[in-house]
Amino acid sequence: MSIFHDAPIMPKGFSCMAKNCGIKAGGKEDLSLFYSEVSANAAAVFTRNQVPGSPVIVGREIIKKGRLQGIVVNSKVSNVGTGEQGVVNARRMGILAAEELGVSPDEVLMSSTGVIAVQLPIEKIAAGLVGAKALLQNDAMVGARGIMTTDSYPKALSCSIGNATLTMIGKGSGMIEPNMATMLVYIFTDAKIEQKKLDTYLRKAVDKSFNMLSVDTDTSTSDTCVIMANGLAGDVDEVHFQEVLQAGCIRMTEMLARDGEGATKMIKVNIKGAIDENEAKIFAKSMVNSPLIKTMCFGADPNVGRILMALGKCFENSFELPKLSFSINGTPIYGKGEKLPFDEPALRKSIGGDPVIFDIFINLGNGEATAYGCDLTHGYIDENASYYSS
Amino acid sequence: MSIFHDAPIMPKGFSCMAKNCGIKAGGKEDLSLFYSEVSANAAAVFTRNQVPGSPVIVGREIIKKGRLQGIVVNSKVSNVGTGEQGVVNARRMGILAAEELGVSPDEVLMSSTGVIAVQLPIEKIAAGLVGAKALLQNDAMVGARGIMTTDSYPKALSCSIGNATLTMIGKGSGMIEPNMATMLVYIFTDAKIEQKKLDTYLRKAVDKSFNMLSVDTDTSTSDTCVIMANGLAGDVDEVHFQEVLQAGCIRMTEMLARDGEGATKMIKVNIKGAIDENEAKIFAKSMVNSPLIKTMCFGADPNVGRILMALGKCFENSFELPKLSFSINGTPIYGKGEKLPFDEPALRKSIGGDPVIFDIFINLGNGEATAYGCDLTHGYIDENASYYSS
Repeated sequence: MSIFHDAPIMPKGFSCMAKNCGIKAGGKEDLSLFYSEVSANAAAVFTRNQVPGSPVIVGREIIKKGRLQGIVVNSKVSNVGTGEQGVVNARRMGILAAEELGVSPDEVLMSSTGVIAVQLPIEKIAAGLVGAKALLQNDAMVGARGIMTTDSYPKALSCSIGNATLTMIGKGSGMIEPNMATMLVYIFTDAKIEQKKLDTYLRKAVDKSFNMLSVDTDTSTSDTCVIMANGLAGDVDEVHFQEVLQAGCIRMTEMLARDGEGATKMIKVNIKGAIDENEAKIFAKSMVNSPLIKTMCFGADPNVGRILMALGKCFENSFELPKLSFSINGTPIYGKGEKLPFDEPALRKSIGGDPVIFDIFINLGNGEATAYGCDLTHGYIDENASYYSS
Repeated sequence: MSIFHDAPIMPKGFSCMAKNCGIKAGGKEDLSLFYSEVSANAAAVFTRNQVPGSPVIVGREIIKKGRLQGIVVNSKVSNVGTGEQGVVNARRMGILAAEELGVSPDEVLMSSTGVIAVQLPIEKIAAGLVGAKALLQNDAMVGARGIMTTDSYPKALSCSIGNATLTMIGKGSGMIEPNMATMLVYIFTDAKIEQKKLDTYLRKAVDKSFNMLSVDTDTSTSDTCVIMANGLAGDVDEVHFQEVLQAGCIRMTEMLARDGEGATKMIKVNIKGAIDENEAKIFAKSMVNSPLIKTMCFGADPNVGRILMALGKCFENSFELPKLSFSINGTPIYGKGEKLPFDEPALRKSIGGDPVIFDIFINLGNGEATAYGCDLTHGYIDENASYYSS
């Protein structure tokens, strides 16, 4: 039985809205607002890219207090590489949202996602925020719509922890290899969790999920993952809370992988028996980032050689070929130093579907890791060769 | 004036041949032989992939002596991931070539390139080698034909150093990010160079050329670069020799980049002013390996944001955004913390051509590096999604 609710809703005291404020053509939602009736404990992680967006620069200051009551997000323009004016615009966006919501401006986080090196159309956002509070409602999918760029569908999920609810809203698609941070993911819960613990729980969950995701090896300048806990549902079992938080983050990671730019399927690589967790992560990332692994998944080819190559190019890892074994979608294809006999038409059919799961046994230690990615297809080329920067 | 001859020929005492021995369908050349009339000083570098091909395993032993008189190469099957039998077959291939050439078997290097995890069709090679010596001739392009896989044309070049000649024959295309070694490149010279110096000169030249090449971030299991110096043209100016060797390696690197799988153009990234050479290399490689940089070159888009992203994701490098400036094909597009005004239609037209050259000034130190790559296109997807492993 899935722990995820059929219809994602905002937890107690939380609400959201999305609208078009004129940045995206055709009336598509380009502005989202998330709100908690009461001030919430909060924690966040941001991109490690050395050209952080203006909202990330301002966001790092704001999150220091560990409290948030609102989040405002626009899509289409990312406010990155925009100098001093960009920082001024990011601050103003937060202040305008705080005014509309009637909350303290140092408790509103702002995000922007889209084209880089273009100034934020702040006047459109200012006008769009007027009256936005009246549009706030309970359906998490609504809030998910205003933060989309090249995503093909809005992404949200909810689950329960005792009487509390945990809801996650995210977007991804391209320029995605978060690496110690993540793309845009907002997590809301009415559970009561102390701020320091919330921060620890978030980092732990992100490490096993978004930090193990790569669509295209390119680390965005805007990656942001925030959690808000407003406490309205009271105390919860915190072990259970951490389990659900991690399960939710992994589920959202899978959604982002599967909807990577041009992707037709998710690729999941489970590494077992590496010398330690760090080496397991390196093997797993090498697999999901290899263009030759990604294209073989698109082409439905059980290519033993490319798997050997992708593991073998982890130069610094401990590795012994005779101990290695691996399978694709449950079919063993390599072991004891040689390619194993398998039903090739059946395996090709299986790889032709979604997902493609690699189980790889290094057999040298106890290090484990799982990485998430997607296939590399004509869609990725189309999307990115025709995505004009201006 | 180019230092490269119009028609590449083998240096004094060297000759080559190529023929079809029945591994490739349609009569295409799949077997090449390179020969020196006298034993030559030799040096080689091989792949760092931890699943080295059988010829690399055997080649590492053979090169220890520092002497070679022949090289035998087959294409289509790489003899990688083939266990003990693969090593036996690689040795036998070298012995058979030595017998045909009438030279010592410990002075013949062998290489194989093509599909991984398939046993070498050694009987076809054995039959093909019979009478091969009679086919040896002087045109380096002939030898280049037998080593091709997905290359779209054979690659060879010659240049002079005083009375001596230096000739280089190579192949590349896909699974190319050599990293401390290289794809298949054979270098022949009749210059007289001491073995230890030859080894040093080779490693220095490879470091500035093939090690800075990436078609797709995937490090092949067969990368091999060998140099043979038979001394028949006598002494040369060794400073000049090193300059020509490096220029030749860079030229071959450019040929391999431009003919990367599916590529329509070469991408060259010049980094200047990094803190040191190591950080310059990391910035340069980050640029040529970024799918978003590669697709913007295919799509002819001067995308400032993606360049900021690709530099900024070098997390450990010293980097200050206000000091950064860069240009594409000579047109400055970023400096003093902001996008510069430029003639966009003209620059799009220029990026639409070949090559696309990025000049990037970090302005923090004296570290310089240049990396070579190619665009990412539908051709790469087609080639690798339909390349069946069996």
